[in-house]
Amino acid sequence: MALRVTIWNEFHDERHKEDARAVYPDGIHAALAQAFAGDDRFQVATATLDDADQGLSDARLAETDVLFWWAHHRHADVADDLAARVQQRVLDGMGFVPLHSAHVSKPITRLLGASCQLSWRVAAERERLWVVAPGHSIAEGLGPYVELAEEEAYGEPFDIPTPDELVFVSWFQGGDVFRSGCGYRRGRGRIFYFRPGHETYPTCYVPEVQQILRNAALWAAPTDTAPLEFGRRPPLEPLPGWTG
Amino acid sequence: MALRVTIWNEFHDERHKEDARAVYPDGIHAALAQAFAGDDRFQVATATLDDADQGLSDARLAETDVLFWWAHHRHADVADDLAARVQQRVLDGMGFVPLHSAHVSKPITRLLGASCQLSWRVAAERERLWVVAPGHSIAEGLGPYVELAEEEAYGEPFDIPTPDELVFVSWFQGGDVFRSGCGYRRGRGRIFYFRPGHETYPTCYVPEVQQILRNAALWAAPTDTAPLEFGRRPPLEPLPGWTG
Amino acid sequence: MALRVTIWNEFHDERHKEDARAVYPDGIHAALAQAFAGDDRFQVATATLDDADQGLSDARLAETDVLFWWAHHRHADVADDLAARVQQRVLDGMGFVPLHSAHVSKPITRLLGASCQLSWRVAAERERLWVVAPGHSIAEGLGPYVELAEEEAYGEPFDIPTPDELVFVSWFQGGDVFRSGCGYRRGRGRIFYFRPGHETYPTCYVPEVQQILRNAALWAAPTDTAPLEFGRRPPLEPLPGWTG
Amino acid sequence: MALRVTIWNEFHDERHKEDARAVYPDGIHAALAQAFAGDDRFQVATATLDDADQGLSDARLAETDVLFWWAHHRHADVADDLAARVQQRVLDGMGFVPLHSAHVSKPITRLLGASCQLSWRVAAERERLWVVAPGHSIAEGLGPYVELAEEEAYGEPFDIPTPDELVFVSWFQGGDVFRSGCGYRRGRGRIFYFRPGHETYPTCYVPEVQQILRNAALWAAPTDTAPLEFGRRPPLEPLPGWTG
Repeated sequence: MALRVTIWNEFHDERHKEDARAVYPDGIHAALAQAFAGDDRFQVATATLDDADQGLSDARLAETDVLFWWAHHRHADVADDLAARVQQRVLDGMGFVPLHSAHVSKPITRLLGASCQLSWRVAAERERLWVVAPGHSIAEGLGPYVELAEEEAYGEPFDIPTPDELVFVSWFQGGDVFRSGCGYRRGRGRIFYFRPGHETYPTCYVPEVQQILRNAALWAAPTDTAPLEFGRRPPLEPLPGWTG
Repeated sequence: MALRVTIWNEFHDERHKEDARAVYPDGIHAALAQAFAGDDRFQVATATLDDADQGLSDARLAETDVLFWWAHHRHADVADDLAARVQQRVLDGMGFVPLHSAHVSKPITRLLGASCQLSWRVAAERERLWVVAPGHSIAEGLGPYVELAEEEAYGEPFDIPTPDELVFVSWFQGGDVFRSGCGYRRGRGRIFYFRPGHETYPTCYVPEVQQILRNAALWAAPTDTAPLEFGRRPPLEPLPGWTG
Repeated sequence: MALRVTIWNEFHDERHKEDARAVYPDGIHAALAQAFAGDDRFQVATATLDDADQGLSDARLAETDVLFWWAHHRHADVADDLAARVQQRVLDGMGFVPLHSAHVSKPITRLLGASCQLSWRVAAERERLWVVAPGHSIAEGLGPYVELAEEEAYGEPFDIPTPDELVFVSWFQGGDVFRSGCGYRRGRGRIFYFRPGHETYPTCYVPEVQQILRNAALWAAPTDTAPLEFGRRPPLEPLPGWTG
Repeated sequence: MALRVTIWNEFHDERHKEDARAVYPDGIHAALAQAFAGDDRFQVATATLDDADQGLSDARLAETDVLFWWAHHRHADVADDLAARVQQRVLDGMGFVPLHSAHVSKPITRLLGASCQLSWRVAAERERLWVVAPGHSIAEGLGPYVELAEEEAYGEPFDIPTPDELVFVSWFQGGDVFRSGCGYRRGRGRIFYFRPGHETYPTCYVPEVQQILRNAALWAAPTDTAPLEFGRRPPLEPLPGWTG
């Protein structure tokens, strides 16, 4: 059965900034969807902030196995209720893949508990993503690094919890490093933050990046494990003090 | 210079439940404070939910190096703003030690990003906290385990992020295990969740427990590291594309 | 393509101890192989210590994707060279699943770097393996715990490195807990230590245990990632000081 | 009581290579010792490979709280027995701080279980060590990064286990990144691998590097925890099947 991937995009820059529209005329979500096109392991849908229910009704979320999230300028416009529902779906097992400037989006800061802030610089500089977890499935099909000719730079400190699985560390021409591929578990779900993807550079069309997106979707796919049950529980062993 | 420890307590059960008052007539915060009494490495203050500013004004938080937090029935009464201020202080370097039923208090769920729920049972059963990180400073002065004659049982699944440092795993008479001592880093601060401490058992008077509380305070103490700075940052290397 | 699983067994107790032969007349390797029988995701072979090349020639190792290893009394008889070859294959990407008393076998202590010692007791006691990583693929198909009616007990401290992924924690009737399912990465390969499987109890026939063995094999399967290359490397950026 | 630091050096390059002698005429161990000179928190001794007992008799090891280890060309000359004794001392609680080209020394590969290989290049290039664990005690007193004007470059993949605590990530002028400050626990002891320190560059005299060495010694200091005991252990709870 195909993995149900939903790509959510704020879809603001590509409609309002000329340099972003030039690169992603149909929106970054459309470019990201291309990574999965024609691959029958995936069934892909897109959604954007200005859609009904901000693109993610309960029904849509319930039908999503892995949610990609691109956002930049309008984090504050995302309803708190939507952020809470995304968080709950992750705890229930949905995969979540926030991209690039989504590092400070509401769902990820709720799930990680830190500020997730960083330093940045837009200067068309070279980025090289080094694989630091060579046997990791998110690195399948890659060489020792992926090079991007021009990207926005992000720099440390990146105020995140220590990743459960650190897959990529970026080198930037301007002198910075950055933890660019960070895997986490929350509840029964998985989160993979992936750094590249600035709206004015054609990063989302790069074959290795698209490979990583597919790998991340597979890695973050829900498992067939029992829902978590909480609350008062009788003893499993004879217990003198137990009166029911 | 002494470490400034603030012990915050909801202080509800001990005033309204006879069985809790019998064990902790002056409140659990008073019993916890005894762990540090007469030890000049620490300077201890207490605060409770019904104090002005819910016990934790900005000034008080600013003067706290490590904050202990006991709570049970009135999590919802804690102001969202207070939870946010505690979170921010942790990110800025303050230590935070939530105890027992504080596992679902607002500050910890904000900092950890998961539900932090679990299973439980009050049946005066025996608990044995095994040290699973034998060289860890939070285990200093202990033997291979600490035994408590009667405690509330907590059971897995405990819906928390994977601890950065897992120090104790509990065995319960009724058949459960539990990750009872869990260390995390968030921002420049540290969090140590410690499980025992039910309001109707004299756990907080147990010498080994008091030793653990002191160890936890020392472990969670702030470091003398640089505040984090974020935002736009010029390159550190010559960069053709940089125009300032 | 089927995953090539090799089950290696010391095959001593079942030939020399009556109580072990009664439970595993064809050897523990034969019982373990049943977990994969009839499942075309797997292609299974067995090997034992007294076979030629101690059961694992270079050719056999090269054709193994995931190696299971059961051993008890004859760790010292395993050739250092074989232990070194197993370690190297793991670094190159092979999965490795040491079981039960293999905790002090040569390959695992080489790979983990610690003594891997523990406490133990054979008293037919009840074991309950709690899932502490509920969304983990090694827990697929299980409930919140797996119960074994009679097993040898292992107890903490278990002198291992902190697991990269802790999946199971055991409760024992006699008062012990134990980290019973421990995942590690080394090089491009993965290791999963699984505790149960004493030679005088029918653990290896338990359906949930067999489910875990299959899950572990899939989790430890090699990835299609690039071999690691080391050594002197020219710069990737123009470098004044580089003379080749 | 002062922390007993022993600095062990292979002491080959500084005696046989002109460019190394020019920078470290008395040996790298002497330069490293300067980091602790005049600081009464530490009591420092040095030892070298050509000393009696290769510098580390049982008595000397027993009197060492934290062992620094610099080595390059003569790893193979270190006795297997010495490597085994260092490993055992770490498991028993001693701190161990291998530096730079000691990444493939016998004690560290025994303790980490992987090849610990990497890529390298000597081209007098700029290194910038970014702090990626800002509240970590090994980063005390530092700014967001430490810059070294000229160093040998190391590059990923660095074939190590995932660090328990990753403190520094290096940026290199030639296009590489590297995990340069890696903390591990083994047994009751701690290990901190620190990358810089090539024999032909004056890295060991840099004040921030010396600060890191002091911080690392304090971090790796033994704890006052109980020795680990293993073996057959009676039950802690009444157990019908137990016959002693």
